[in-house]
Amino acid sequence: MSKLIVKKFGGTSVANVERIEAVADNIERTIKAGSKVAVVLSAMGKSTDDLIALSKQINPEPDLREYDALVSTGEQVSVALLAMALLKRGIKGKSYTAYQLGIRTNSSHSRARILDVDVDKITKEIEEGAVPVITGFQGMNEFGDITTLGRGGSDTTGVALAVALDADECQIFTDVDGVFTTDPRIYDKAKLLKNVSFEEMLELSSMGAKVLQLRAVEYASKFNMPIRVVSSFNEGEGTLVQEEKNIMERPIVSGISSVDTEAKLTIRGVPDIPGVAAKILGPISDAGIDVDVIVQNIGADKTTDFTFTVDKSDFSKAEKILKETSNSLGGGQVEVDDQIAKISIVGRGMRAHAGIASKMFQALAENEINILMITTSEIKISVVISKDEMKDAVRALHDAFDLDRELDT
Amino acid sequence: MSKLIVKKFGGTSVANVERIEAVADNIERTIKAGSKVAVVLSAMGKSTDDLIALSKQINPEPDLREYDALVSTGEQVSVALLAMALLKRGIKGKSYTAYQLGIRTNSSHSRARILDVDVDKITKEIEEGAVPVITGFQGMNEFGDITTLGRGGSDTTGVALAVALDADECQIFTDVDGVFTTDPRIYDKAKLLKNVSFEEMLELSSMGAKVLQLRAVEYASKFNMPIRVVSSFNEGEGTLVQEEKNIMERPIVSGISSVDTEAKLTIRGVPDIPGVAAKILGPISDAGIDVDVIVQNIGADKTTDFTFTVDKSDFSKAEKILKETSNSLGGGQVEVDDQIAKISIVGRGMRAHAGIASKMFQALAENEINILMITTSEIKISVVISKDEMKDAVRALHDAFDLDRELDT
Repeated sequence: MSKLIVKKFGGTSVANVERIEAVADNIERTIKAGSKVAVVLSAMGKSTDDLIALSKQINPEPDLREYDALVSTGEQVSVALLAMALLKRGIKGKSYTAYQLGIRTNSSHSRARILDVDVDKITKEIEEGAVPVITGFQGMNEFGDITTLGRGGSDTTGVALAVALDADECQIFTDVDGVFTTDPRIYDKAKLLKNVSFEEMLELSSMGAKVLQLRAVEYASKFNMPIRVVSSFNEGEGTLVQEEKNIMERPIVSGISSVDTEAKLTIRGVPDIPGVAAKILGPISDAGIDVDVIVQNIGADKTTDFTFTVDKSDFSKAEKILKETSNSLGGGQVEVDDQIAKISIVGRGMRAHAGIASKMFQALAENEINILMITTSEIKISVVISKDEMKDAVRALHDAFDLDRELDT
Repeated sequence: MSKLIVKKFGGTSVANVERIEAVADNIERTIKAGSKVAVVLSAMGKSTDDLIALSKQINPEPDLREYDALVSTGEQVSVALLAMALLKRGIKGKSYTAYQLGIRTNSSHSRARILDVDVDKITKEIEEGAVPVITGFQGMNEFGDITTLGRGGSDTTGVALAVALDADECQIFTDVDGVFTTDPRIYDKAKLLKNVSFEEMLELSSMGAKVLQLRAVEYASKFNMPIRVVSSFNEGEGTLVQEEKNIMERPIVSGISSVDTEAKLTIRGVPDIPGVAAKILGPISDAGIDVDVIVQNIGADKTTDFTFTVDKSDFSKAEKILKETSNSLGGGQVEVDDQIAKISIVGRGMRAHAGIASKMFQALAENEINILMITTSEIKISVVISKDEMKDAVRALHDAFDLDRELDT
């Protein structure tokens, strides 16, 4: 029986007519090799940005229902053009908006979540040799309004469609060759990873955000749908993101991620009473601000220092809220720092090996890099350091864990 | 009870954000004056042309289902932006695609006809003070595919929506002040008509095509929906297109139309046997070519000369088909002329007055304009003349029928 592959191409891959023709060629090759194909596309190049700029001319904070109706047109353009290019090659391309197909989401306009994908319509067409070409990044809510999934949401559409179609693999085409041990622009010794587990991919957040939308990885993990991250421009097998148990042999540390887009906020000398964390983070969360690293430590005087990081875009809002919280809690000094970086080492192999943390801290110490915060999970250790030491830290850790060796897996 | 007005704005009226804001102002004034409003929009300026150019880069004759999916995005952009501009003014603007609303058409992609408009959803919203903003020019067929109505189809959407909503008036905003006795660019004595009947509007085809889509007039006539043609740029009452019986007093001739976009084809010496007209025009019609004027005359030798006009864009295709027909009919010389103009005088008053035709022919004779073809209907007399005499003919007839006098109606 022939394989069914869902292919998702991002904005760079369909930036102009020449690129769209190249995508059609790619699909033609896959079909000639005997597979069936369904396609998910983003909008052409910067067209979504152009639409957003247009809306901002009318209102810097436009109504979100209308914002979604507006920006969703970008993908509708690219899917129709690719269907034309496929038909020109004698392949039965057929464009579908998420609306036509029935990709149902909740009603959180501009950052909706997919609830359900109705593939009855296209399943039969695929069997008959057609190639459905579907708008990524969007859906419809229970009221029949158009919704969008937020930037990068096309990855999630790709995975959700692959799951609904029970596809063999979801290929995500990007402008990089796959997932690397660290960002090659930060360290040129970075190596391409042939395999990575869903969990690791989620933890490799900084690299992940660049090549794969995290929500898409969560979705794929939940339904065990293998994702292959491949280049739109270069040949190659890319990186297969899959279930841990399918990955035979692996290194202790798979990769190193680095993020310099966060800021750190600290509230000092808070009374250490039950519920104080909720009192501090509740108002932050109510304001729609996502918190990343959280560290709390109790001092000798039974008060506690509470530190967390947020995205820089939420920094000033978070600072204002935290100062109000400080007042209502009866004092506690608020300190902030937006010149930080977060470095993480990630690897499923870490669980079975002792001494990884101390090896990490020692490598940083040898390079005179001061650690401001530490947080750990089962397969990740993160440190927050000064932003201007980020590159040095990545290189030091990459060397310390021998990530530039050739990988067999 | 407050009036309900459907307002349709064309591409020029929503060409940029400033124009969209002006449209929002217009709607705000109408609402403040106590009316309820529903809106139909075309795509912004030349955006539809840009989309068509993009598709032609892939295929000069793209698949029409995909063509429709592509170009329909233009209106989706403009309706979302206008809804944002209305919301900014505290007016509950709410965009709808034809797809969302349920504007059902047949399946003739790129020139579909509206079958049915489902207004259940918006009727309640309008009662509650909302202003639905609907994509013109498009619909969906029975298979759930996106269709478009052909260029200028937004007028038809406007009228169809007005009919479905049982509106009091459908206002069509254009870049001219209304319907004139003739094209003001051809004769500067042209006067604005305050009233014109549906039938006259249909016959005033050349002017009509410039300000109003003829299919929209047919639709309005069928359901007796008054259309007001008004300027997007200047104040004024424009021209009310309505049922004949509502127009009290009127001139004999209402206006003069002129068309120089047609070509003439003649087949000579065809045996005059039953069914010959069908044999000649059948293949033309099968090729999707619309025929305008048709004249047939029997000669003394019992053969017939058969002449008809087609749009210049279909000229060479029609010539080829006619030569094939000539061969299969056993001879008959084919003559063609693409340097022609068609001039028509139109007026419901003509029916009650004798001598209009001879007055027309005399005016042309006095100006030494040779008539190549004549065709008449109840409220129109058309002549085909040489293209380079078009302007002279329009002016001569405008003077002969005193169309530059002030009109009371």
